[in-house]
Amino acid sequence: MDLLKKLCEIHAPSGNEIKMKEFILHHVGENMARWSSQPEIIHGPEFQDCLILAFGKPRTAVFAHMDSIGFTVRYQNQLVPIGGPDAHSGYKLVGADSLGPIECELEVNKDHQLFYNFGRAIDTGTDLVFKCDFKATKTYVTSCYLDNRLGVYNALRLAETLDNGVLVFSCWEEHGGGAVPYLIRYIYERWQIKNALISDITWVTDGVQPGKGVVISMRDRNIPRKSYINKIIDIAQKHQIDYQLEVEGSGSSDGRELQTSPYPMDWCFIGAPEENVHSPQEKVHKYDIECMLELYRVLMKTL
Amino acid sequence: MDLLKKLCEIHAPSGNEIKMKEFILHHVGENMARWSSQPEIIHGPEFQDCLILAFGKPRTAVFAHMDSIGFTVRYQNQLVPIGGPDAHSGYKLVGADSLGPIECELEVNKDHQLFYNFGRAIDTGTDLVFKCDFKATKTYVTSCYLDNRLGVYNALRLAETLDNGVLVFSCWEEHGGGAVPYLIRYIYERWQIKNALISDITWVTDGVQPGKGVVISMRDRNIPRKSYINKIIDIAQKHQIDYQLEVEGSGSSDGRELQTSPYPMDWCFIGAPEENVHSPQEKVHKYDIECMLELYRVLMKTL
Amino acid sequence: MDLLKKLCEIHAPSGNEIKMKEFILHHVGENMARWSSQPEIIHGPEFQDCLILAFGKPRTAVFAHMDSIGFTVRYQNQLVPIGGPDAHSGYKLVGADSLGPIECELEVNKDHQLFYNFGRAIDTGTDLVFKCDFKATKTYVTSCYLDNRLGVYNALRLAETLDNGVLVFSCWEEHGGGAVPYLIRYIYERWQIKNALISDITWVTDGVQPGKGVVISMRDRNIPRKSYINKIIDIAQKHQIDYQLEVEGSGSSDGRELQTSPYPMDWCFIGAPEENVHSPQEKVHKYDIECMLELYRVLMKTL
Repeated sequence: MDLLKKLCEIHAPSGNEIKMKEFILHHVGENMARWSSQPEIIHGPEFQDCLILAFGKPRTAVFAHMDSIGFTVRYQNQLVPIGGPDAHSGYKLVGADSLGPIECELEVNKDHQLFYNFGRAIDTGTDLVFKCDFKATKTYVTSCYLDNRLGVYNALRLAETLDNGVLVFSCWEEHGGGAVPYLIRYIYERWQIKNALISDITWVTDGVQPGKGVVISMRDRNIPRKSYINKIIDIAQKHQIDYQLEVEGSGSSDGRELQTSPYPMDWCFIGAPEENVHSPQEKVHKYDIECMLELYRVLMKTL
Repeated sequence: MDLLKKLCEIHAPSGNEIKMKEFILHHVGENMARWSSQPEIIHGPEFQDCLILAFGKPRTAVFAHMDSIGFTVRYQNQLVPIGGPDAHSGYKLVGADSLGPIECELEVNKDHQLFYNFGRAIDTGTDLVFKCDFKATKTYVTSCYLDNRLGVYNALRLAETLDNGVLVFSCWEEHGGGAVPYLIRYIYERWQIKNALISDITWVTDGVQPGKGVVISMRDRNIPRKSYINKIIDIAQKHQIDYQLEVEGSGSSDGRELQTSPYPMDWCFIGAPEENVHSPQEKVHKYDIECMLELYRVLMKTL
Repeated sequence: MDLLKKLCEIHAPSGNEIKMKEFILHHVGENMARWSSQPEIIHGPEFQDCLILAFGKPRTAVFAHMDSIGFTVRYQNQLVPIGGPDAHSGYKLVGADSLGPIECELEVNKDHQLFYNFGRAIDTGTDLVFKCDFKATKTYVTSCYLDNRLGVYNALRLAETLDNGVLVFSCWEEHGGGAVPYLIRYIYERWQIKNALISDITWVTDGVQPGKGVVISMRDRNIPRKSYINKIIDIAQKHQIDYQLEVEGSGSSDGRELQTSPYPMDWCFIGAPEENVHSPQEKVHKYDIECMLELYRVLMKTL
């Protein structure tokens, strides 16, 4: 859980993911010698702040978004949301501007307008994120930004034993996207990969409970190709991995951008469910994290 | 009308169009020997469940979406809509799951939530469609899914006499799209085609009546290039084909994805108007279907 | 201001920008001999009604949309908006149809439905725009369509002294876009350009006042990459150009299409602020126009 804790503490709201990229680069550099296979590390100006790890002869790509929700400082102590954060007065926000580090408080008025309370004015354009309060018990992990540092964690753990496959660390997912289109262009044109898995976090709902296994999402706002989803469910069943099925009419992910890209990419969202979505206290059952990693390991071999 | 009836009875909601593709492939195989020209039949993993018929030296592409609206089974007898179906309690829905064929009833509560009534639980993720009750009189055809089986029918009839052109059978149109971007990439990169026609069904409105001819849509939510629309109207006029002009602020089609694709594709929606939109009783005047086919025949020669 | 006045008088609502393209082509032909460098002029069927001027070895692209908001004639004297025009009864609208030139009046009923008042029926599909009433005082310019004829003006003035860079004149920006995706495909594939500037007009707000300098938008509905925005602000600061920072949660521009394109393009919206947005009386301070051009000149050299 130490790796997950570090990931949750990194400042990387949508549009400003550079620190997450640097952390992952460092982590890969420190650890890859002990992995089953050594990946090609792909990054640079053509990929903005994104990062790709390519193992062996890839047939399947895993997308894990690095960015988090947050808040942009406007002027007159106003805040504008980045993505769709849960917003309540009293939440602690952190960041930094030209005058130094910031720890301030969120204030929400009755018209749902957002403000900060701080001893001085903060530079316009500064981005703030929830202050991290990471807690792990025997059964649960609680922190801000488990969505999607857990998806990143899952990808980095998967890397340890991966022989063939691409791990993609993307930007802007929480705020309308923008990186997946060029990432998929590169991936498809280089390897003709047609299978994608979205390593991300979903919601506890009427039909999805904590501790009952990883969630395979059959649809959200977007509808992936049914034959691909069925193939994944069959593999999960055959390998006796605990999973739960979700069907939603709303919500989306990096899968949306794969769906609408000019490449014929099948995609499926597979991830642990969380409570307290987009709040400073996102909560995920440890067993679901285990099942998630187990299913990804099997899928990367069999898809 | 026998071909149209068969098309209307096929189970192919967005994301699960494979049966429509197989039907069209079979139909083409059975009939193409009698056509003016024999098309190249393009499909396979690079095209997911889509299908392209390429005739001669194509300058214009016709897009006909194969998918229909419908419902996805959630859990606790809940349903989630696929696309924007008209929903009223009592509508008959059909499908199949691991336990066999299903014929159940739609139930809509006062909060507009959707449920099914059936003697047993249906597998999560099962997709249901309206039960087909196809009727043809001397003047009208009534059935579910005339949108867009009539568009597909129009394309298949057009195939009989087509010398140059591409017929594209697309997926996901009713639910946000996703196939047109890679289809257009293939079509543009192979043939540099810049003209598209959207073979689809529109609405009877204040200005568009049944039996008055095919509708040329000058705009909907999206605005196609005016010079292209004007060229099409001029051709319809010159060939004395009965047409009606539509101007809308809402609604969209495969044209939306052509508009926003990274290719310079002109597009125009041309199709018969229907009453009882997205209900089990969509109704279209036969004369409008005739005019539609006639205009497509002329346009494929002259554009 | 004579060039700006002419630009504001041109009829070019979204989807029908051909007259703006022709005007710019003519202007370039007449003037380019006196420019520092002579651009390659790129247009033709592959670019629909768009136009690109390429100078030297370009590293940065400037996007200026040519289209304006307006109204499409439906039937029964109904109008459908093009983009999001400010609509009040009595506004003068102009256009032309098969019977000749039109000058009519906009009527808005209490349900916000739009109609025209004119002595005869206007052809369905005719597009109407605000009648231009251009006024320049010592400090202010007032006219319809300063958004975005000022952005076009800025690009054409920039052309006079530009050595390296691409000026892109785009279509459909006011109505959902559609041209930027293929323009960026061409630009990226030919020059691997990764820097874009959006030459467009923004709003006077709580934090942005007329006469205080050009606005650098740090975000709107979309969030550009923070490191790119910071680089631009640093350049403005270093060159002592008067600028204002904007942070918004809504609004968008050609930048949105760059953000979601399959190319790794950084973008920043930089433009003068206006009052009376999307009305016949858009009003911009002349000093902000000067600062805008000055900042573009510096950025094209230093980015």
